[in-house]
Amino acid sequence: MTELLNNREYKKEQLKRLLLRIHEGESVEKLKDEFRQVLSGISPLEIPLIEQELVKEGISAKDIAKMCDLHVELFREAVKGTDELEERDLPDGHPLKTLYLENKEIMKDAEMLNLYARTLATTKDERMRKEILGVLEEIVSNLRKVGFTHYNREEMLTFPYIERRGLTAIATVLWTKHDEIRFMIKYLAELLRKREEMPWDEFVERFKNKAGEAAFALSDMVFRENNIYYPTLKALLSEGEWKAIRMQEDEYGYYKVNPPEWDPGEDVKPLHPWEINPELSVEQLLGLPKEVQEALKGQPLEFDKSELKREGDIDLGTGYLNIEELRAIFEALPVDVTFIDKDDRVRFFSPGERIFGRSLSVLGRPVQLCHPPKSVHIVNKILRAFKEGRKKEATFWIRLGPKYVYIRYVPLFNEKGEYIGTLEMTMDIAPYKEIKGEKRLLDWRD
Amino acid sequence: MTELLNNREYKKEQLKRLLLRIHEGESVEKLKDEFRQVLSGISPLEIPLIEQELVKEGISAKDIAKMCDLHVELFREAVKGTDELEERDLPDGHPLKTLYLENKEIMKDAEMLNLYARTLATTKDERMRKEILGVLEEIVSNLRKVGFTHYNREEMLTFPYIERRGLTAIATVLWTKHDEIRFMIKYLAELLRKREEMPWDEFVERFKNKAGEAAFALSDMVFRENNIYYPTLKALLSEGEWKAIRMQEDEYGYYKVNPPEWDPGEDVKPLHPWEINPELSVEQLLGLPKEVQEALKGQPLEFDKSELKREGDIDLGTGYLNIEELRAIFEALPVDVTFIDKDDRVRFFSPGERIFGRSLSVLGRPVQLCHPPKSVHIVNKILRAFKEGRKKEATFWIRLGPKYVYIRYVPLFNEKGEYIGTLEMTMDIAPYKEIKGEKRLLDWRD
Repeated sequence: MTELLNNREYKKEQLKRLLLRIHEGESVEKLKDEFRQVLSGISPLEIPLIEQELVKEGISAKDIAKMCDLHVELFREAVKGTDELEERDLPDGHPLKTLYLENKEIMKDAEMLNLYARTLATTKDERMRKEILGVLEEIVSNLRKVGFTHYNREEMLTFPYIERRGLTAIATVLWTKHDEIRFMIKYLAELLRKREEMPWDEFVERFKNKAGEAAFALSDMVFRENNIYYPTLKALLSEGEWKAIRMQEDEYGYYKVNPPEWDPGEDVKPLHPWEINPELSVEQLLGLPKEVQEALKGQPLEFDKSELKREGDIDLGTGYLNIEELRAIFEALPVDVTFIDKDDRVRFFSPGERIFGRSLSVLGRPVQLCHPPKSVHIVNKILRAFKEGRKKEATFWIRLGPKYVYIRYVPLFNEKGEYIGTLEMTMDIAPYKEIKGEKRLLDWRD
Repeated sequence: MTELLNNREYKKEQLKRLLLRIHEGESVEKLKDEFRQVLSGISPLEIPLIEQELVKEGISAKDIAKMCDLHVELFREAVKGTDELEERDLPDGHPLKTLYLENKEIMKDAEMLNLYARTLATTKDERMRKEILGVLEEIVSNLRKVGFTHYNREEMLTFPYIERRGLTAIATVLWTKHDEIRFMIKYLAELLRKREEMPWDEFVERFKNKAGEAAFALSDMVFRENNIYYPTLKALLSEGEWKAIRMQEDEYGYYKVNPPEWDPGEDVKPLHPWEINPELSVEQLLGLPKEVQEALKGQPLEFDKSELKREGDIDLGTGYLNIEELRAIFEALPVDVTFIDKDDRVRFFSPGERIFGRSLSVLGRPVQLCHPPKSVHIVNKILRAFKEGRKKEATFWIRLGPKYVYIRYVPLFNEKGEYIGTLEMTMDIAPYKEIKGEKRLLDWRD
């Protein structure tokens, strides 16, 4: 025991000296090898303890953060196995490479979360506690973004491809675990926010434990993804599928990485989930990770071969609808629309019950003739401002009995930026003024 | 002068006796001839004066109202010239007949307004004033509907047909006068509402004058329409055009009449304004009222021959749009929509910036796989309730940073009442909660 302590004391002294040199401006990169040597003899469990002791001895949070970076990097070097190889095989900007790179960031932040939470628990100094809490708030707030970006991209962009191929179970398991992690991190954020509402000791104990659980769950997910899910994707998805995914990734954003554009080639057509052949080839099956092969044994894969586009469907760019559906959608909208084309003629109005009645007789009529003569000059002024690009909207609101009618005009432009008409939108906003509090999906009662 | 007074005194006595008989239950219809005889010798200007005197002598408002009816009917019989003939030529439910019938009601109510306003001005009895004010409030509130129904139908359903034929000036003049009348009646309503805010004498003097002006403007419009505008419509519009108008009239409603269905025949195709041949035939020109013929002299008619439907347009039932316009409309909507079809598969989402991101990969995906596994059972419950017709909507609202997100699901059905899918609508209602007061078109500044 004494020996262990002495040993740790010795290593701590070494670490301290290294940190001092960082503090004095020596490059972290240059010191990496020396750090590795010092840390090599310490068990992963010991590292946080030593770091905590250093904190207690007054090393600033800033220097600790630098050491954390180094520590996590060294840790990553230790755990990187097959995944690093995978990653190296992939071109920059390839969605799978981006996922691997994000996982490195997630791993690092999970480590930092755990480390700082444990440090906080043993810190007595009030100023130091504040500093650490500040760092923790930042880490937790960052980690919340993992759900919106990394997990969300997996769920929305990659899952559909494996679902079509019948591997829905994998998607469901991963999504369930993602949600558990989202919940854990949300809980940590809440704990931090409410820390004044409980005794310090209670707070710090709960936070340390929950942060430990979250950090574990995060790294566990990294391992699952790197070792099972990503190899599965690699075995199944074609270049066209990755190309389609790359085209949509920006919609969701990334976790601490900024991937460059990537295109497997102009001759590769982007393949959306509904366009693939969902049947697995023998080659694909054999390329799957052992765990997935095991799971698939004995249960026949149910491919999803349903066709998206039906005879007579209108291709709207973001989906396929028939006229019956389009009409029903416009009728169900909580807003009445009327569209005048570039020549100021009424071309369309949404059907159904409306705040201001519309009838077919208005179609083709110049909008100037649809208004009381007294206000026509204003209509013309607005349209001129729209066509000349000087205004992007004109809004009005009036009371009409129990209704509070909100009217909005916006100019519409095509992809070339040419003016193609103006849309009138009319809605009753009175009901929205009554909405209070929250009502969530899980509150729904049959 | 004495003779005139005596003469009036005599007729007043006769009227009083007749009213007494009405009061005792004798049928108004039976007494009509006698009334006519009595009234025949009285100038139209004298009638209200006599009626006012009767009121002063204590005849109840109810009996006066009955006499008013009679008086107006007799008055109408006197003024009915060509229009009554026109009306008799037309079948019940024909839009032109409905317009004529409404004008009779408008004429009667304008008369009543004038009569009661003048009576009010000379009534000293407090209880009586109250009673008359009650009647006036009802008349004014009725007359406000003339603008929403009779005038609005003319402006929205009949004007487009004459505009296409180049007679835009008639439409503009009538609309301007309609708006003047709308404003006059609105002003009367306001005066009535604010009558406590001014001395009685001031109120009653202003009200009498303004009511007189409004009554005059209303009857003047009846004359213009009956003698110029309706004959113009009769000369120009074909059966198909009237059929199209009849199909849309219910959207706007009627003034105190309830026209039956009317259909010139199954072989007559409804003709919308953009479908007619706008050129005037010689026969049509010669059939126009003299006033219109005069007005057209020396100015060439500018027919509007623009085509509504373009190559490749989608016929939406309430207009024609191309895909570029449809996409731009969905993008400009203040609500994000996502549509799942009857098989629960995502089929369309609106493009552009959204509250909850959507990407093409979601198309064709079963909605159950688009939700966190934890809440899938609720999604299924809602869809079951929709498909079984037990629920017509499911709404939720949550705070999301500065946004107050309102989410609404509604089932969609086709014309046969079959379930065709569910629409998700998501909008940020936070901005609507800030809206206060009013901002009208005429307040717009460039």
